[in-house]
Amino acid sequence: MTSTQTVWQNLNLCLSGDPDETVLDAAIAVERGTIVWLGARAALPALYAAWPREDLARAWVTPGLVDCHTHLVYGGTRADEFAQRLAGTSYEAIARRGGGIVSTVRATRAASDDELFASASARLEALLAEGLTTIEIKSGYGLDLATERKMLRVARRLGAAHPVTVYTTFLGAHALPPGFAGRADDYIDEVCTRMLPALADEGLIDAVDVFCERIAFSPQQTERVFEAAARRGLPVKLHAEQLSSNGGAALAARHRALSADHLEYLDEAGVVAMKEAGTVAVLLPGAFYFIRETQLPPLDLLRRHGVPVALATDCNPGTSPCTSLLAVLNMGCTLFRMTVSEVLQGVTRHAARALGRADRHGVLAVGRQADFAVWPVTTLAELAYWIGRPLCAQVVRAGETVYRRPPRTATGDAR
Amino acid sequence: MTSTQTVWQNLNLCLSGDPDETVLDAAIAVERGTIVWLGARAALPALYAAWPREDLARAWVTPGLVDCHTHLVYGGTRADEFAQRLAGTSYEAIARRGGGIVSTVRATRAASDDELFASASARLEALLAEGLTTIEIKSGYGLDLATERKMLRVARRLGAAHPVTVYTTFLGAHALPPGFAGRADDYIDEVCTRMLPALADEGLIDAVDVFCERIAFSPQQTERVFEAAARRGLPVKLHAEQLSSNGGAALAARHRALSADHLEYLDEAGVVAMKEAGTVAVLLPGAFYFIRETQLPPLDLLRRHGVPVALATDCNPGTSPCTSLLAVLNMGCTLFRMTVSEVLQGVTRHAARALGRADRHGVLAVGRQADFAVWPVTTLAELAYWIGRPLCAQVVRAGETVYRRPPRTATGDAR
Ligand SMILES: [Zn+2]
Ligand SMILES: [Zn+2]
Repeated sequence: MTSTQTVWQNLNLCLSGDPDETVLDAAIAVERGTIVWLGARAALPALYAAWPREDLARAWVTPGLVDCHTHLVYGGTRADEFAQRLAGTSYEAIARRGGGIVSTVRATRAASDDELFASASARLEALLAEGLTTIEIKSGYGLDLATERKMLRVARRLGAAHPVTVYTTFLGAHALPPGFAGRADDYIDEVCTRMLPALADEGLIDAVDVFCERIAFSPQQTERVFEAAARRGLPVKLHAEQLSSNGGAALAARHRALSADHLEYLDEAGVVAMKEAGTVAVLLPGAFYFIRETQLPPLDLLRRHGVPVALATDCNPGTSPCTSLLAVLNMGCTLFRMTVSEVLQGVTRHAARALGRADRHGVLAVGRQADFAVWPVTTLAELAYWIGRPLCAQVVRAGETVYRRPPRTATGDAR
Repeated sequence: MTSTQTVWQNLNLCLSGDPDETVLDAAIAVERGTIVWLGARAALPALYAAWPREDLARAWVTPGLVDCHTHLVYGGTRADEFAQRLAGTSYEAIARRGGGIVSTVRATRAASDDELFASASARLEALLAEGLTTIEIKSGYGLDLATERKMLRVARRLGAAHPVTVYTTFLGAHALPPGFAGRADDYIDEVCTRMLPALADEGLIDAVDVFCERIAFSPQQTERVFEAAARRGLPVKLHAEQLSSNGGAALAARHRALSADHLEYLDEAGVVAMKEAGTVAVLLPGAFYFIRETQLPPLDLLRRHGVPVALATDCNPGTSPCTSLLAVLNMGCTLFRMTVSEVLQGVTRHAARALGRADRHGVLAVGRQADFAVWPVTTLAELAYWIGRPLCAQVVRAGETVYRRPPRTATGDAR
């Protein structure tokens, strides 16, 4: 238990991922879960001098990390399919055996609430142990009202049961469900007139997403979903330009989307439209890596036009079985040649912006909830540099320590 | 504490990484750290019926993992150099500032034994939490007798202090040290006539390695080191054909090397020579990934000629800051298109063979030390499928539980 008043000290502060916004030998005063002061320890006002102290041994402190694009809730596993593909089984043969996304839809429909909650909790805990305090979770493996509802309820329950803020996204238009072959427009009707309104009425939707791609839904169908979202006052986002260039990002921008995500095939017109609309570019290097994509997202264009870039895990069973934002930081640097500052901002301030919650998450500032992660590293660059190293020592949410790395095991203990 | 007699049960057994060598619903009887029986639980001999039981809740059990190529011991960090390169600083400018391998040599020379031990222990603990029970550790950042000795002593100390078997490799011929510019042959003299004999006399060398590459040492210089190793009866291995094809693998095979490592530019003549010599191919996908290599190692040739393939982290500060064998499994599958069975054998039986210790590590069998890892997964394919997920629940070494994943944090605990 932490006191309702605490001064965290002997730490180096990274306010936003921006290297120009760091404070060495800093302190943070927290009262009832809210940051009431932060800055150089030497400047700590006398008011806080008598408060209980927590010493962080010169660790770096960053905002709690934000994963702004995940499909964390689903049934079943696709690990065996992964193994079969590597052993030479064709996509067609796997599909004939009921593999691919259809198998995840079937398993998600068959799973109970508790089963979905338990499997997603295990994945979430891996993320939480790396400093996560905010996550977006999409539906989209139900593709019928009952199962989409079940997924979104489980997402809300994850936020209630774990020390993390969950934002839900309705992705009914993720894929064409079994039974609608050749009738994509009919399914979009169902999404717009039945599923979306019902789930919005139940308070289960924070934003609406569509997979706009040749293998999924067309720009016209996307637009219908966006219009249905607008009728309910819900913000939109889009899986866009992952496998081909189809104007998806510009379409998203026209609808003032919070974000357009993936974007390997984004062109300059799309970049300009996103900049004008304030739409965040969410890059997903885990999926890029896992499907061995070679087309790189146009980072130079995004930089030149000043479009904010976020990074996320895209945690999903088919194309990014990734439960590590640190792995994503490394891939952003290694595969996309992003700078360390860019990738850090990509999982803090820009990720919060991609959720439409830049006012609440991703930055440490007075008046904000005290959500932060503690990293006993010599330089922040280590967060992006290491592959597979558990670097986070402690996670604080609303002023309370909600995660602490277990103590070391056997050092010095001769065997 | 575990009893001196234990039956581990309610587990699925993976004896060697080979899917044809698995036993469902198995049991393992261990006495004084040694496996005395294993097989289907239903066949457990009456003799063991009264022994204390440990129930593993239907988890998979594999041999303790083996990392057969690491540079785990070194001083300093290169994370800031990583950040600078991404921010646009050229290699030349970084070298002018004293960066690159020279900075690691300087930091390693300057570090105390305790400092090297502490930093390597932290990296080792990340590996241990993923089921590692055997590791190879190279010298090669000292490049003078005193510092190479210091590194190898720290490697031995790691093996005494942590629950892991350490094999040391003398890599004095890793790079040309400062002060020997233009005098590579003189340095090789120093390695062969002074450093290697002295360190061998002190019992610090289990094997001898060379970096054979245009930017390091020539085949002729490599051969001189191999001959010096042979005079002391020490086995050899080689950093070969990583950046160019230079016959290094065939050279290694001629000297009956335990392994040739990296091998992106290996040709068929080299593969044939390795096969005939029994030299293991050690692939290092972490370095391939980190330096964004595009030349793939010739897996089809290795398969066709039946050369055993091992995988390792190559943990080092410059080209593979990787402390996760599970990440390496995923990269072996994703980047090299190896099968799940191949990558699992690559960090168990074939890795042990690359150390010349196939008789001791990498396989679970009667008479072996009871070194194994416990994985609560539904399928072994999960070990290679996930990116950044802590999958190992427990590590047993010589029959004792030496690592246990900390219990879950907040599930079900509403906040
Ligand atoms: Zn997605
Ligand atoms: Zn190496």
